[in-house]
Amino acid sequence: MPATALDSIIFRDIFSTPEMRLVFSDEYRTTCYLEIEAALARVQGRLGIIPPEAAREIDNKCKLENIDFAKLKTTTERIGYPILGVVQQIVGFCDKGLGEWCHWGATTQDITDTATIMQIRSALDLVEADMERVAAALAKLSRQYRDTPMAGRSNLQQAVPLTFGFKCACLLAAMQRHRARLAELRPRVLVGEFAGAVGTLASLGKDGLKVQQGLMHELKLGQPEIAWHTVRDRIGEVGCFLGLLTGTLGKISMDVKLLMQTEVAEVFEPFHEGRGSSSTMPQKRNPISSLYIHSTAALVRQNTAALLEAAVADHERSTGPWEIEWIALPETFLLASGTLRQTRDMVEGLQVDAARMRANLDLTGGAIVSEQVMMGLGPHLGRQRAHDLVYDICREAATTGRPLVDLLAANAEISAHVKRAELEKMCDPANYLGLAGEMVDRVLAIEAKGASSSRRT
Amino acid sequence: MPATALDSIIFRDIFSTPEMRLVFSDEYRTTCYLEIEAALARVQGRLGIIPPEAAREIDNKCKLENIDFAKLKTTTERIGYPILGVVQQIVGFCDKGLGEWCHWGATTQDITDTATIMQIRSALDLVEADMERVAAALAKLSRQYRDTPMAGRSNLQQAVPLTFGFKCACLLAAMQRHRARLAELRPRVLVGEFAGAVGTLASLGKDGLKVQQGLMHELKLGQPEIAWHTVRDRIGEVGCFLGLLTGTLGKISMDVKLLMQTEVAEVFEPFHEGRGSSSTMPQKRNPISSLYIHSTAALVRQNTAALLEAAVADHERSTGPWEIEWIALPETFLLASGTLRQTRDMVEGLQVDAARMRANLDLTGGAIVSEQVMMGLGPHLGRQRAHDLVYDICREAATTGRPLVDLLAANAEISAHVKRAELEKMCDPANYLGLAGEMVDRVLAIEAKGASSSRRT
Amino acid sequence: MPATALDSIIFRDIFSTPEMRLVFSDEYRTTCYLEIEAALARVQGRLGIIPPEAAREIDNKCKLENIDFAKLKTTTERIGYPILGVVQQIVGFCDKGLGEWCHWGATTQDITDTATIMQIRSALDLVEADMERVAAALAKLSRQYRDTPMAGRSNLQQAVPLTFGFKCACLLAAMQRHRARLAELRPRVLVGEFAGAVGTLASLGKDGLKVQQGLMHELKLGQPEIAWHTVRDRIGEVGCFLGLLTGTLGKISMDVKLLMQTEVAEVFEPFHEGRGSSSTMPQKRNPISSLYIHSTAALVRQNTAALLEAAVADHERSTGPWEIEWIALPETFLLASGTLRQTRDMVEGLQVDAARMRANLDLTGGAIVSEQVMMGLGPHLGRQRAHDLVYDICREAATTGRPLVDLLAANAEISAHVKRAELEKMCDPANYLGLAGEMVDRVLAIEAKGASSSRRT
Amino acid sequence: MPATALDSIIFRDIFSTPEMRLVFSDEYRTTCYLEIEAALARVQGRLGIIPPEAAREIDNKCKLENIDFAKLKTTTERIGYPILGVVQQIVGFCDKGLGEWCHWGATTQDITDTATIMQIRSALDLVEADMERVAAALAKLSRQYRDTPMAGRSNLQQAVPLTFGFKCACLLAAMQRHRARLAELRPRVLVGEFAGAVGTLASLGKDGLKVQQGLMHELKLGQPEIAWHTVRDRIGEVGCFLGLLTGTLGKISMDVKLLMQTEVAEVFEPFHEGRGSSSTMPQKRNPISSLYIHSTAALVRQNTAALLEAAVADHERSTGPWEIEWIALPETFLLASGTLRQTRDMVEGLQVDAARMRANLDLTGGAIVSEQVMMGLGPHLGRQRAHDLVYDICREAATTGRPLVDLLAANAEISAHVKRAELEKMCDPANYLGLAGEMVDRVLAIEAKGASSSRRT
Repeated sequence: MPATALDSIIFRDIFSTPEMRLVFSDEYRTTCYLEIEAALARVQGRLGIIPPEAAREIDNKCKLENIDFAKLKTTTERIGYPILGVVQQIVGFCDKGLGEWCHWGATTQDITDTATIMQIRSALDLVEADMERVAAALAKLSRQYRDTPMAGRSNLQQAVPLTFGFKCACLLAAMQRHRARLAELRPRVLVGEFAGAVGTLASLGKDGLKVQQGLMHELKLGQPEIAWHTVRDRIGEVGCFLGLLTGTLGKISMDVKLLMQTEVAEVFEPFHEGRGSSSTMPQKRNPISSLYIHSTAALVRQNTAALLEAAVADHERSTGPWEIEWIALPETFLLASGTLRQTRDMVEGLQVDAARMRANLDLTGGAIVSEQVMMGLGPHLGRQRAHDLVYDICREAATTGRPLVDLLAANAEISAHVKRAELEKMCDPANYLGLAGEMVDRVLAIEAKGASSSRRT
Repeated sequence: MPATALDSIIFRDIFSTPEMRLVFSDEYRTTCYLEIEAALARVQGRLGIIPPEAAREIDNKCKLENIDFAKLKTTTERIGYPILGVVQQIVGFCDKGLGEWCHWGATTQDITDTATIMQIRSALDLVEADMERVAAALAKLSRQYRDTPMAGRSNLQQAVPLTFGFKCACLLAAMQRHRARLAELRPRVLVGEFAGAVGTLASLGKDGLKVQQGLMHELKLGQPEIAWHTVRDRIGEVGCFLGLLTGTLGKISMDVKLLMQTEVAEVFEPFHEGRGSSSTMPQKRNPISSLYIHSTAALVRQNTAALLEAAVADHERSTGPWEIEWIALPETFLLASGTLRQTRDMVEGLQVDAARMRANLDLTGGAIVSEQVMMGLGPHLGRQRAHDLVYDICREAATTGRPLVDLLAANAEISAHVKRAELEKMCDPANYLGLAGEMVDRVLAIEAKGASSSRRT
Repeated sequence: MPATALDSIIFRDIFSTPEMRLVFSDEYRTTCYLEIEAALARVQGRLGIIPPEAAREIDNKCKLENIDFAKLKTTTERIGYPILGVVQQIVGFCDKGLGEWCHWGATTQDITDTATIMQIRSALDLVEADMERVAAALAKLSRQYRDTPMAGRSNLQQAVPLTFGFKCACLLAAMQRHRARLAELRPRVLVGEFAGAVGTLASLGKDGLKVQQGLMHELKLGQPEIAWHTVRDRIGEVGCFLGLLTGTLGKISMDVKLLMQTEVAEVFEPFHEGRGSSSTMPQKRNPISSLYIHSTAALVRQNTAALLEAAVADHERSTGPWEIEWIALPETFLLASGTLRQTRDMVEGLQVDAARMRANLDLTGGAIVSEQVMMGLGPHLGRQRAHDLVYDICREAATTGRPLVDLLAANAEISAHVKRAELEKMCDPANYLGLAGEMVDRVLAIEAKGASSSRRT
Repeated sequence: MPATALDSIIFRDIFSTPEMRLVFSDEYRTTCYLEIEAALARVQGRLGIIPPEAAREIDNKCKLENIDFAKLKTTTERIGYPILGVVQQIVGFCDKGLGEWCHWGATTQDITDTATIMQIRSALDLVEADMERVAAALAKLSRQYRDTPMAGRSNLQQAVPLTFGFKCACLLAAMQRHRARLAELRPRVLVGEFAGAVGTLASLGKDGLKVQQGLMHELKLGQPEIAWHTVRDRIGEVGCFLGLLTGTLGKISMDVKLLMQTEVAEVFEPFHEGRGSSSTMPQKRNPISSLYIHSTAALVRQNTAALLEAAVADHERSTGPWEIEWIALPETFLLASGTLRQTRDMVEGLQVDAARMRANLDLTGGAIVSEQVMMGLGPHLGRQRAHDLVYDICREAATTGRPLVDLLAANAEISAHVKRAELEKMCDPANYLGLAGEMVDRVLAIEAKGASSSRRT
């Protein structure tokens, strides 16, 4: 009987993904604990710090299926942290008291922090996979609609034309920057923790750093330069990354839902039978994914602020701030996974109505190309005169509903210099796309390089 | 396999309560849906809007045990909202097509908003119950320690003495204000929604308001003055209330954890075998509840900001902002329930070491009463002279570690006017408690009235 | 050379108001300090706690024009708080050392907290004035457009019709709730602070509460039940109120900017020469106020979260959290003043294009009234048959662009039962407004009562 | 008469720095506008797009001293943006109508975004300078106190010993990570904007990219791959960086204020006459900088959330979200500058009481070394037996106040195996510092490389 929307039987696959929920499940987290304890035993066995047979026995018994979760819940509530309860269970599983060597020289937070980093590693892989799918879909749309004119809109007003491919390429460029950010943060963040009670590895004597190095090697994590139990910028950085990423996805959803409006109707979320339709209102084609994206992105950024607050930790083990992460970090990844998945599915199946885009370009009676007309007439009439004349004629076109080109052609001052054919060219929005295509190509060229280099081996 | 900390098998009873999770479970929410649909049918049957046998049949079939949750998940994912899926299932349960009259004139959000309000009602009852326990515990502590001196601390420095009861009474006064806030918000917030597609009740003709009134009467909710599908201050207000309440609880936890410090050791969380102790460090008595309270309160306030953002809704059904509430409102209540429960258990079992409080008052060698001594010597030496002399002697006491009273008595200028017995009185922190006791009484007097009046019938 | 947008020479009157900036200016805050110190002296003089001539002298010298702000800056930076610097200056102004009696028994935070409450009082009066103007403008619009049909929109799709007056009345209802909230919070929040170093009034002996009572009476503030130096729910509550209020204003701006879209063009911000127009794009009529409202409301809610965090104060004088308020409280009021002012000016001058509203109702070829047609044909064809038939015909109307009424009339099954005149009635959106008008009246009736009772005397 | 705390005559140098306020002043921002317009004219003159004499004239007249700020305020309020007002003034300054060529092909947001990036560049230089001072001070403290033992504290309880240098080195490592983050974000963020009304550079024909390239070269900014008017991750990233950085500074201030407590008294903020002292309480040594750091860091993170929200922009010019940045970006930098400056001054002058640190290590009667004693006795008594015995004796020491070493020596089971001299060694916290020193060296080695490489040329 889950109570959060993210675990709700009904909503969980709307607001998050099964893969991400797996990473933050009790089972997976406990599996990480066990892997770390086993690896620690192996390394310490190898270094002669604990008896080899203890290492073997512990390694053998660190299996998820052994764990009694009900018992673990009880001990966690009593002690305040789950690690000791896990260790006690392992001790119990081991023969001949060999379990006593389990968790040797470690502190609770060594295990939980390292487990958290392992979860982050898995979670970032999931994030990356969907990021790449979003990027690929945007790249495809950029290519496909490179030259498809539509109204550019500023302040929700039609401004001058652009192409739908250009619109997508602007977003793709952001995905490329997110890709770079992810590549930069991984080595900095994917660093384990093994430092003992206050970070000095005191209980291990001189071997501490050797154990630390060996353990991180086993777990394929970076070795920390020094303890970071209460220096949490790494975790905060992950939250920031997800906040930035979902911000871009929120922008995508914003544009899609605006373009789906009854009065605009240029772009649509993928059609699935029954999805977003109304039983009584056949005209409706409701956005669905856009809504979810908007909401989960909004919650990610507040969780980011919470993760930043967790940095204000006290001394060598923080008294409250750390627990903020326990709640906010899974939440942030879960929400981000939902945001990404909904965006991925949406952009991969996006439906584009190029005809309607073209039709909407005519809504302002040609005024959307007034800038082009002004610039075209400038050499003939003088710049200022061209501006004033066109400005007035555009207003007339908007008021009367008459085509701009007719009004221009009917104007004696203009027709004295420019023929109707030329005026028609000036009034065609498709001729005022600037360097939209070239810019799409620039971004796609980066993509050709970037996407391939991002494929990690 | 839950993924959030709030639903985690291991952590859920740490960060929230079973009772609150029940209120926000799929089952309870769906039960609310069914109660509303049933009540709607009954009311419409009574008013002759739908056939009486349809009303009976629908009322009969609106039972949680009938609901197929797997199917509901699928339809919800397709449609984007759960209501239609529930209604379709009810329709299927009903004989003779009578189910067609189910949900008559209602819109999806009518049902979800009203269900949300019913959840809020239940959730606020739970909140109130724990609030009253916290208030009662603080009242008891205020009374019990009304005259127990301890160091007052400003900027984490010992300042002048107060009593522990006074400290508790300051917090109790806040709980009293929260009680008043809760009483004020209930009638404003516990208002249902029944308004149809865009709020005009158009599909019900002239009977709309009668149905609305009857439905709210059935559900024991207030009748809205007008639709509020996209005017969400009611929900935001609930978030703000929880943000304010948990802020006070955060302050309580802050003080407890500071007072538990090794170097202070005046107050302790309740002792449970093994709780907060360390297997290798017998000197440790870790705060536990304080940590959870600190973290959950931190997350409540970020969710409050999210709920405020949800107010920025568009037109008659918001496109994204509403979904923020779906996630943030349960989260906020769940976190608040954990904050409250941990606080309740902590203050109900708080351990107070009055002897240590007294001992710490002496830490500054009497300087904590310097203000009292200055004021006491003022009439004899002149105010400024008394100030300067005492200030210097206090510094000497702090540096040398000699008792302040000895140094004062040894000073010729002072001993010329004041006897040692009187100096000893001046140097006793217990004589410098001001009106601490009277103020405790003021707050307890309010409590005597307030707590009783808050018992709802 | 201000650096914040709120104080910027260029932007300050866009994001805040001169009146609100005055309330949070150094001058006004210092004036409050002086008023409090003067009032304290008068009260203590009256009670015989300080010499009457000292009271008179202090009262005389507590004048803003005496204050040397450069000096105050320096002492504030050294000491960390401005009060001692102010008191030292007063002491310097007073003859015969009478200034020594200034600030008698008070602590720094007594003065700053009480000054803050005085600022809040003034600021809330400003807030209320603009709130009432917004409410009055919404009431006027509700009345004027009570019966003006327009498309209701859900999920940014045209759904069923409503009236513009109804839309405004939904918002007016929120303003009425805000009015009630303001009335409730005032007596709880407008409470001064006078409690001494740790809240016990120790330095004043038995007269403490008499002084406190007299001081609050002088300042026309409520008397606190007990010290609240570190129990800050009052301040948080003010932040929450502003967060809720600006959330509603954000919703208003959202609707206005959406309705101003080129493709919708139903409602416009007030026209001022040059405002929101483009020098090259005559078709543009940019929203301006809507943008500011959106942004300032977004920042208010983050400041609300910050003010909630300030509640987590330590002991008797908080070590950092309090300073959050120093920055966030003025900021919140300043931003809220800008949000309110822009909204007020916008709704007071809102331009409504009823003809375009009507025209947009026809955009879906009649589908917007499909629900009405289904219900109208139900009695003739059976409910389900009517639904399916109308649903299909509506799709045809949308696809072909032919008027719905023509298609309905051309359908033999329909025309067998219903005449074209009746079909035309069914297809008129103006006939499907439900109880929009009645609900407007309900809200206006509340307004008639509420607005008058809110006029404070 | 400024109204924000950041511009307040009294508080501005507490919460921000003069240098940072300069960067975000109206004057500096307007200077950036003028530099961009001048550079644009020069580039376009060179490319033959505008007449060379126009380029020269515009370049000449783009001087801050020409600007009439009162007029600029008025036009900004009317138009909604300051750029057109600046351009109009430039046009007015230019002879022979040559000003008409000013701002050729640019859109308002091209200029404001590029100016914002120039402000960010300057602001990041200031941030870096103070970051490096903080890092240098931490490095110095790490070296100086590399071997100075003090109590490590977990959950505010004394745990096991560490050194003060180790504590500092953990923080220094975070500063090193921030240094790396800053180096990574600079090339990604310091990219200008020049793209025209909707980003296609349409009004410049084929020369658009050449102008863009030339302009960015003039301004020493990166050239954008494509327009980013409404794709704002760059700005959000800056906010995140400052959120992460100030989070670390918040942690530093947290530790300092805790260590300054009356009952701990190990570390102090730098002493300045009168700073943090009390006129009546000579024992007080209030933290001051710590408070400001705590509060400004708290506000930075809420502003970070706001900057992340600004990413949810619509279409090609956002309708509200952009304005969030106008307010939040300066605010974030101003707050961060204050946080940094207060931290810098604090750590550069930090006072460390090594004797008190040593004394506090004895507070638990030796229990702080119980782990060491257990491990030392393990080989003699068996691990479990050693644990149980030491645990009990430690409790006895804590209860009776008798020195641990005496109790250990008095125990027959122990004294049978271990001599008092050896026990004394085991009980000396200075012998249980683990690899604290080695880890300090690791971080200092990184610092030796990192700090030098960060010096930009």
